[in-house]
Order: sequence, then C-alpha cells, then structure tokens
Amino acid sequence: MFEKIIAMSLLYDFYGQLLTIKQQEILEMYYNDNYTLAEIAKELGVSRQAVYDSIKKAEKILFDYEDKLGLTTKFQETNEAIGKINKFIEQALSEPATDTSLRKELMEIKAIIDKLND
Amino acid sequence: MFEKIIAMSLLYDFYGQLLTIKQQEILEMYYNDNYTLAEIAKELGVSRQAVYDSIKKAEKILFDYEDKLGLTTKFQETNEAIGKINKFIEQALSEPATDTSLRKELMEIKAIIDKLND
Repeated sequence: MFEKIIAMSLLYDFYGQLLTIKQQEILEMYYNDNYTLAEIAKELGVSRQAVYDSIKKAEKILFDYEDKLGLTTKFQETNEAIGKINKFIEQALSEPATDTSLRKELMEIKAIIDKLND
Repeated sequence: MFEKIIAMSLLYDFYGQLLTIKQQEILEMYYNDNYTLAEIAKELGVSRQAVYDSIKKAEKILFDYEDKLGLTTKFQETNEAIGKINKFIEQALSEPATDTSLRKELMEIKAIIDKLND
C-alpha cells in the first residue's frame, strides 16, 4: 500500500490538474488525508461504492496519462541522477585534500541542486 | 518564428501523445518537415483553411496542457541547472590543481549528466 501511495501521489502531482475538481477532491481525501471510503461517502453524501468507483476511475485516468506521456518516469531518472551528483559533491567536500577554489565551485553546484529541490 | 518552433517542439515532445494521430501528423508536417499549409492541404486532400484550423486547434490543446501542468517549464529549469553543473565540472577538470581522486569523482558526475542527456 505504501508504495502505491507514493506512486499515486507522484502521478497526482504531475497530472492531477487534468482531473475534475470533484475527482481531485476525492483523491486528496483518500490519499492525502487518509479518509476511509466510508468517511468520504458520508462527507459527500454518496454511497461507498460511488466513492470507490470515482477513485478507481480517477486513478485510471492518471495511469493512462502516464502511459502516454511517461513524464513521472523521466523526472524520476533526472532526480536520481541529481541525487547521485549531490552525494559525490558531499563526499568531495568532506575530503580535506579538496582545494579552496574547487571547494567554492562544488559549493556553487550544491547551491544549484538545493535550489532545484526547493 | 524560430522561437515559436522551439516552444512548439518542446510542447509537442511533452504532450504530443495526447493529440489525435491526425493532429500529430499535421503538426509534424508543419513543424518538423517544414511543409507549407498549401503543401499539407494538397497532401491530405483538404482545404488550406482546414489545415490552418487544425494546426491552431492542436497548438491550443498543447498550450492548454502546459497551462494546466507546466511540465515543460519545470523540465527546462532542471535542464538549465544541469547545464550549469556541467560547466562547473568542466572548469574544475580543466584546472591542473584538481587532485586525482576528486578528478575521478567529477568524471563520474559528468558520466551521470552525459547519460541523462542521451
């Protein structure tokens, strides 16, 4: 379940704006606020089955966008690469042999990465 | 015009799969193959006006997706950041003072970036 929440959350971050407001609302209740199906049904005054169907439909839409565009996969690759670069830089900075001018350059790279991760 | 082609090409790379096959075909003829409206019209056996309308409609769809999702902007920021990192690394590698172990690490970062840009 935990992995599914992360995958859905990433898909929602990318493509959520393409869902209807109602679909966004239900997914947020379910995935962000951890409401149960019964709680969402009560809140919206609809059946538990209707909530379930809405979630499945909205999830399918998000998966279909990812199937067509593959953008979360592309982004994840970039993020992993940046994570690796960050690790290398931290290692280089921790080595006393690293000279001052290079140290300054590495700090600048780190600042770029930090800004990107904001 | 040149800037518009780049912008449209980026939007098309990101969201083109969400267009119909026919829309994709027309945009590719127009932007990739540099066909004129008249040439596309002749090729497809439709009026020049119909081609023009199709292009405008397809462009609007791409712009609407970008308005909602903003993914090309996000990607461009990341790419610019990676470009800057690459420049720093090349500079560091060109300095004779850079020691061997660090040089090895910088080469590894460079390899990650090169792989990303493939």
